[in-house]
Amino acid sequence: MVELTHMIDSEVFLAFSTHATVVVVKMMLMSPLTSYFRLTRKVFANVEDTRLVSREEDRKLVRVDPDVERVRRCHQNDLENVVPFVLIGLLYSLTGPDLATALIHFRVFAASRICHTVAYVSPLPQPIRALSWMTGMVVTLSMAYRVLTTATYL
Amino acid sequence: MVELTHMIDSEVFLAFSTHATVVVVKMMLMSPLTSYFRLTRKVFANVEDTRLVSREEDRKLVRVDPDVERVRRCHQNDLENVVPFVLIGLLYSLTGPDLATALIHFRVFAASRICHTVAYVSPLPQPIRALSWMTGMVVTLSMAYRVLTTATYL
Amino acid sequence: MVELTHMIDSEVFLAFSTHATVVVVKMMLMSPLTSYFRLTRKVFANVEDTRLVSREEDRKLVRVDPDVERVRRCHQNDLENVVPFVLIGLLYSLTGPDLATALIHFRVFAASRICHTVAYVSPLPQPIRALSWMTGMVVTLSMAYRVLTTATYL
Repeated sequence: MVELTHMIDSEVFLAFSTHATVVVVKMMLMSPLTSYFRLTRKVFANVEDTRLVSREEDRKLVRVDPDVERVRRCHQNDLENVVPFVLIGLLYSLTGPDLATALIHFRVFAASRICHTVAYVSPLPQPIRALSWMTGMVVTLSMAYRVLTTATYL
Repeated sequence: MVELTHMIDSEVFLAFSTHATVVVVKMMLMSPLTSYFRLTRKVFANVEDTRLVSREEDRKLVRVDPDVERVRRCHQNDLENVVPFVLIGLLYSLTGPDLATALIHFRVFAASRICHTVAYVSPLPQPIRALSWMTGMVVTLSMAYRVLTTATYL
Repeated sequence: MVELTHMIDSEVFLAFSTHATVVVVKMMLMSPLTSYFRLTRKVFANVEDTRLVSREEDRKLVRVDPDVERVRRCHQNDLENVVPFVLIGLLYSLTGPDLATALIHFRVFAASRICHTVAYVSPLPQPIRALSWMTGMVVTLSMAYRVLTTATYL
């Protein structure tokens, strides 16, 4: 592994930092999207939340809506894929990969997750979403492979 | 970005490290809280778990309880908010923010999440929980803004 | 805290990097395992996904299956435990623990999570899974304790 003093100012780390922030912010935006659907469709998970749209607590608004569930599944898929990307990507950036290779990893991942979200929320016909998800997985596994092959200490 | 050799001993990184650990540990404590509710109310997700409170496997104890689900939703909300805070906060700490500004971010976030948990589990009347959640989101997005404006490499 | 230039080349950081990658990759593998169960048992969460196994969209395949739910609960438990381990483990590695102590933490955690997954998916009789989960929690809390006692800035 190269020294971090070198890495931290390096373009690889900058590129990682930028792409990681973009995908994490994209993931976070699923929360307000869920809230938006909950408030406009009046579908809540907790009885006290019904007060946000109704004068009195209304147990009938505690229900399940297919569109809200769709956004929540998309958010969950982000948690399952974006978080591993950032964790492994950070370690990968410290292994001193060359810039061009690293950029391909980061850009393909970011594009695949934006594509995944559009395909999930729209929804677009399969296998668009399946392929987007798989692309992201392959990128993260490829970075994991480099982390483990550069230096391993079990 | 400043050099990490400098940052790692810096007060900003220490402050990040402390606050990140506090909110992650708070998030982790939702797990034993869920277990506590499951064991005391005898509500399980897997049939083999019923052996923890019953001599024989008892399929009737595999059921859904509103209080257990409430704790689980709170835990899920932590995953969706605390993890992005730590990931983006780490990158933010490396951009060399001044200590006072960084401390405001970290303290407000930690307070907002503790407040969120109390409001969710009690539950307190809305919009206490909604505002706590929103406060945490704003803090993380503000740090993400700084990471992206300090240096971007797409 | 010690300087990161020193740490980054250190055996502690290498050991962390290796174990963190192993447990994150293990967590990621729950996704294809879920897909495998969904495709072989023809159990889907979205109506458009039924096109992956059927010529026309088939709403009857949008259903819940106990084995798919079991894998998903195992995946969720990984998110709740592996992510905190990596986040706190990174900060822990920077506090300059001695190698032998750090290795015990990392190895016990990795073993406990592999054991947890086997116990959950098989399933093995309790309390094997409960103890595996608890072991992982104790390791992460022990690292959090060291992070907070080495240097605290609230």
